[in-house]
Amino acid sequence: MQIAILTFDGFNELDSFVAAAILNRMKRRGWAAHITSPTEHVTSMNGVTVQRQKPLEFTGEADAVLIGSGIRTREIAADDDLLSRIVLDPSRQLIGAQCSGTLLLAKLGLVGDLPACTDLTTKPWVIEAGVNVIDAPFIAHGNVATAGGCLASQYLATWMIARGASMRDAEEAMHIVAPVGEKALYVSRATSVVAPFIEQERAAVA
Amino acid sequence: MQIAILTFDGFNELDSFVAAAILNRMKRRGWAAHITSPTEHVTSMNGVTVQRQKPLEFTGEADAVLIGSGIRTREIAADDDLLSRIVLDPSRQLIGAQCSGTLLLAKLGLVGDLPACTDLTTKPWVIEAGVNVIDAPFIAHGNVATAGGCLASQYLATWMIARGASMRDAEEAMHIVAPVGEKALYVSRATSVVAPFIEQERAAVA
Repeated sequence: MQIAILTFDGFNELDSFVAAAILNRMKRRGWAAHITSPTEHVTSMNGVTVQRQKPLEFTGEADAVLIGSGIRTREIAADDDLLSRIVLDPSRQLIGAQCSGTLLLAKLGLVGDLPACTDLTTKPWVIEAGVNVIDAPFIAHGNVATAGGCLASQYLATWMIARGASMRDAEEAMHIVAPVGEKALYVSRATSVVAPFIEQERAAVA
Repeated sequence: MQIAILTFDGFNELDSFVAAAILNRMKRRGWAAHITSPTEHVTSMNGVTVQRQKPLEFTGEADAVLIGSGIRTREIAADDDLLSRIVLDPSRQLIGAQCSGTLLLAKLGLVGDLPACTDLTTKPWVIEAGVNVIDAPFIAHGNVATAGGCLASQYLATWMIARGASMRDAEEAMHIVAPVGEKALYVSRATSVVAPFIEQERAAVA
């Protein structure tokens, strides 16, 4: 699985890097999560400048795409030229959005009437965009998932590994990154948050 | 509070950025956490190149220092020239180490016989360096704290805010970054992990 972690200027480090680092625990299985940006360099909301690993057009060829969050998402959501460079296909890609990334997902027409998650700050703008925002850390509908609250990015990663590989692989990845002494707790919470949406998907296929 | 987040080539994104992002939630109070590195650019264990915000010598003037983790810590721990550029003073600085950062903390003479935390991979090398490693996510002795398991970096940040400002500020920072619907859970766990070491410190001062 080649995964685009969509990361824009003003990005929130937690939203891009927590998911990317957990997904990259699947490196031994050929997975790679790439910081994917419209420009060669992007600077975070806290002034950290990062060199992109893939250009925006990589979204069209990636097996999975996670839309990160940041303090400039409203400007990006109004930039039709930029949005037109993001090519997503939920029939063949796993797609996730984190916090204000849900606003971009809605602008790209991938949310519709379905309930979605976002953070508390972005919530009013996402509702304004017509989205039914729920008070939960994570939800998925088929191949499209949303998460709310920076550290909920662990659930997007867990879901993506469970869908693209197996729940066992997702548990192993979460086990590595969880705090010492709390590993069982972290693994069981992450799996219990995403499990209903994995089973739902299996039922739909069956 | 000006905080150095020590970040070396091969760094683990979770260990540097989770703590930095939570600490930067105190921006309105004049706090800033800076990615601090020996070279102008550092590249993570997953190939993400980041521009440093401060040089290594900033450790000497910072109010607090967090030593991040990564896949090249053993080489760094053997590099006396590089270690000599890291000037720490626990009598006036809050100092924390994350995962393999505990190995560097030990080499810098700041662990001694006291119990410390690290991740499961680094554990044998930290024990080899003479450290008493415990099976816990976080421990602090006075102004020096250690954490084990990438996501335990949230506890280093919680501790640092509670010590440098107040537990109330630490709760607010954790509340912002926690998953939606799990905010009370995350705040109460983080505060219960670090609280014994804040109270201990108050008792020592009293």
